[in-house]
Amino acid sequence: MAQLLTTEGLAEALERQDEALIAEQVSGLQAADLADFIRQEGQNEAELATRLLSHLPLSERARAFGYLDTGLQARLAHDLSPTALARLLSKMEADERADLFKLVEEDVQEAALRQMASEEREDLRRLASYQEGTAGALMTSDYVAIAQGLTVKQALQAVRSTAPDAETIYQVYIIDDERRLLGTVSLRELILALPEQSMDDLMRSELVTVSVDEDQEQVARQVSRYDLLALPVLDTDQRLVGIVTHDDAMDVAAEEATEDMHKAATIGKLSQGFGSSGLLELYRKRIVWLVLLVFANIFSGLGIAYFEDTIAAYIVLVFFLPLLVDSSGNAGSQAATLMVRGLATGDVRLADWGRHFGRELLVAGSLGLTMALAVSVLGVIRGGPDIALVVASSMIVVVVMGSLIGMSLPFLLNRLGWDPATASAPLVTSIADAVGVLIYFTIATMVLGLPA
Amino acid sequence: MAQLLTTEGLAEALERQDEALIAEQVSGLQAADLADFIRQEGQNEAELATRLLSHLPLSERARAFGYLDTGLQARLAHDLSPTALARLLSKMEADERADLFKLVEEDVQEAALRQMASEEREDLRRLASYQEGTAGALMTSDYVAIAQGLTVKQALQAVRSTAPDAETIYQVYIIDDERRLLGTVSLRELILALPEQSMDDLMRSELVTVSVDEDQEQVARQVSRYDLLALPVLDTDQRLVGIVTHDDAMDVAAEEATEDMHKAATIGKLSQGFGSSGLLELYRKRIVWLVLLVFANIFSGLGIAYFEDTIAAYIVLVFFLPLLVDSSGNAGSQAATLMVRGLATGDVRLADWGRHFGRELLVAGSLGLTMALAVSVLGVIRGGPDIALVVASSMIVVVVMGSLIGMSLPFLLNRLGWDPATASAPLVTSIADAVGVLIYFTIATMVLGLPA
Repeated sequence: MAQLLTTEGLAEALERQDEALIAEQVSGLQAADLADFIRQEGQNEAELATRLLSHLPLSERARAFGYLDTGLQARLAHDLSPTALARLLSKMEADERADLFKLVEEDVQEAALRQMASEEREDLRRLASYQEGTAGALMTSDYVAIAQGLTVKQALQAVRSTAPDAETIYQVYIIDDERRLLGTVSLRELILALPEQSMDDLMRSELVTVSVDEDQEQVARQVSRYDLLALPVLDTDQRLVGIVTHDDAMDVAAEEATEDMHKAATIGKLSQGFGSSGLLELYRKRIVWLVLLVFANIFSGLGIAYFEDTIAAYIVLVFFLPLLVDSSGNAGSQAATLMVRGLATGDVRLADWGRHFGRELLVAGSLGLTMALAVSVLGVIRGGPDIALVVASSMIVVVVMGSLIGMSLPFLLNRLGWDPATASAPLVTSIADAVGVLIYFTIATMVLGLPA
Repeated sequence: MAQLLTTEGLAEALERQDEALIAEQVSGLQAADLADFIRQEGQNEAELATRLLSHLPLSERARAFGYLDTGLQARLAHDLSPTALARLLSKMEADERADLFKLVEEDVQEAALRQMASEEREDLRRLASYQEGTAGALMTSDYVAIAQGLTVKQALQAVRSTAPDAETIYQVYIIDDERRLLGTVSLRELILALPEQSMDDLMRSELVTVSVDEDQEQVARQVSRYDLLALPVLDTDQRLVGIVTHDDAMDVAAEEATEDMHKAATIGKLSQGFGSSGLLELYRKRIVWLVLLVFANIFSGLGIAYFEDTIAAYIVLVFFLPLLVDSSGNAGSQAATLMVRGLATGDVRLADWGRHFGRELLVAGSLGLTMALAVSVLGVIRGGPDIALVVASSMIVVVVMGSLIGMSLPFLLNRLGWDPATASAPLVTSIADAVGVLIYFTIATMVLGLPA
């Protein structure tokens, strides 16, 4: 029966100090599970990683190495001799190799480079030179590219000779003398074709491609949209420089979703997973907006101060204050979230602002009416019919206003060149709060006939 | 040069009513782009879809059909004759076919089934029978499975004969007489191996698999974690019943991220993309929590009412109220979001509650101190040193309390069998608000020496 080894066996082997059993368990584990096991060790993870990985042959060791946390990779790389590091690097996948290379100090980089073949060296230098967050930094150079004019048989030979190194061989790229991308044939089409057929006839030339400096979020979106196994990356001269594979695209999509969720709660971009983030980084990524919002909330405070006389005369109004302003903020956060996520997935387009404004007006109006009914009962109980009227009519207006602000803010931010995801729930809430205070006490002053 | 057709050419062809040009443009477009073009048409999309798809040969038409919105698919399917529908269904991918089948009325289902080959009929019935949101509903039955004991050459022949129908041929599954999964060989290994080599020797038998009733979120997580092209799905007897491919897993991951983001803003699960959701559905998915939160906020109101005397004596305290309670809610939302997303990605484990509680205490303490400094300046300006002392010390306590509540709530909800993502920003804010009101006025009453 097909079965997956769990880390329990490894834990037991380690306890028994049985090196043969450890070796067996380590080689049977999936790289992701092995990396997780090491991560959970905590303090001595460098020591444990070195011990466990030593049981693997070089190519599998390089693969497992790529699954470790980047911080740990850098620490281990630092302790290796230049020769050992160069050997490890040469067996890693090109994109992971470049990521690791960027993490080690310059003298370690230089020492390792000196041990590498010149072609490999150039490839590494080039991949490591692209800016983080772009297609270039995400792509691998381990793909199958062939010249034009080959037959299917020749192409299959080329695939066979590249297969041990290529990250994926399931898409074969056909390039001209200048490395410009002409078309692609999938391995599926290749093995179904006749040996003497011409690749040029077989190839598809309407291709989804991205530019090397394209944002990684956009790259992931293309892979997802067109259900691609790999997405070719071109430089400004339309030359093929790499491919982004489906698994890396999926990781990026998850990272970007995490980033957007954090942003929605005013948390800045973390350099690694939350679980491994340092306390100082967490503090720094959280404090900025918290302090900014303190000052944003002064407007609500000023609004309240302005209506001090009204409040002093009808202290019961304060009872309904949190309830009204929070409702406004909550409805606004809902609307903002729908827009931010819609814009991120491509479900909402910037040009659709007008249509969504109209839809939001109808939905928010209905929400406001329902909530006004709920709250008017409370108003009668705690303050009588006049107060109920004030609270219910305020509810309708604040919910509609909050929703329209929340819905429009992402579009406005985008217009100003900001990320729409900056329209976080707390920011929308703070704005809606201030507007809500003004609306509530203005209506109260009007209905109850008090001087403002 | 490799290039992608844009929909502009199609728009122009339609304007010119040039059927030949329309046909050319339609067949050159990617299915996803064609579906988008139809979606943007709005009202007459059924008519436009029928017209455009008619230019494609059956297999490509079936593929493009699978990219249309499910509502539109159902409408078009309804208008087809049973024979035409059966032909279309038979050319669609098995998983998309089952999805469409579930959408049409029972009499249409029966009529179409009568037109299908018995094997196909059974397959469709089976796939359509799995519950939405499980591995069974996500998987396809179009994969390559071979018996044990074959040579590489025989396996390659089997791959070639299945290739035109299989959704992916890049992973070959080896099964026994009872269809139990024994192992897998990738096409890469297959084309590198010698023709006479035994598949049983070549195959890998430590496999990542999922059960047919596994939650789709878990399925997507496995595909991402192990960088899989396809994930085999087994029934309770360990028989291979399907595979989930990387592209479907990526769609699920995006859907689940959207669902979690919406939940974080108290929006219920939408049955389709936000852009295509009806207004009534949007109302229903938003109103539930908005009304629940109105009642949750009564506690804040009651807290305020309880301290009416304090407020009446020091009306300036109200100025700082929104600022303090919002800060508490904001810090709490940050903490809750970090946990909810961490739990969803597997970065945070339920067993880690204690560790994260300690970390949060340190981070929130520092956040509270910083914000107390910011707010004490305001306190001195608007109320003098006593008020500054009340406001600053309240700030520290409410930020720490809010953060600890936000951080713990997802764990608590999970314990109660709820989705941790229910710990939405507005829910955390409402709880933190009520607690914040109590803390603030209690401290004020103590420091300023007023009767509660």
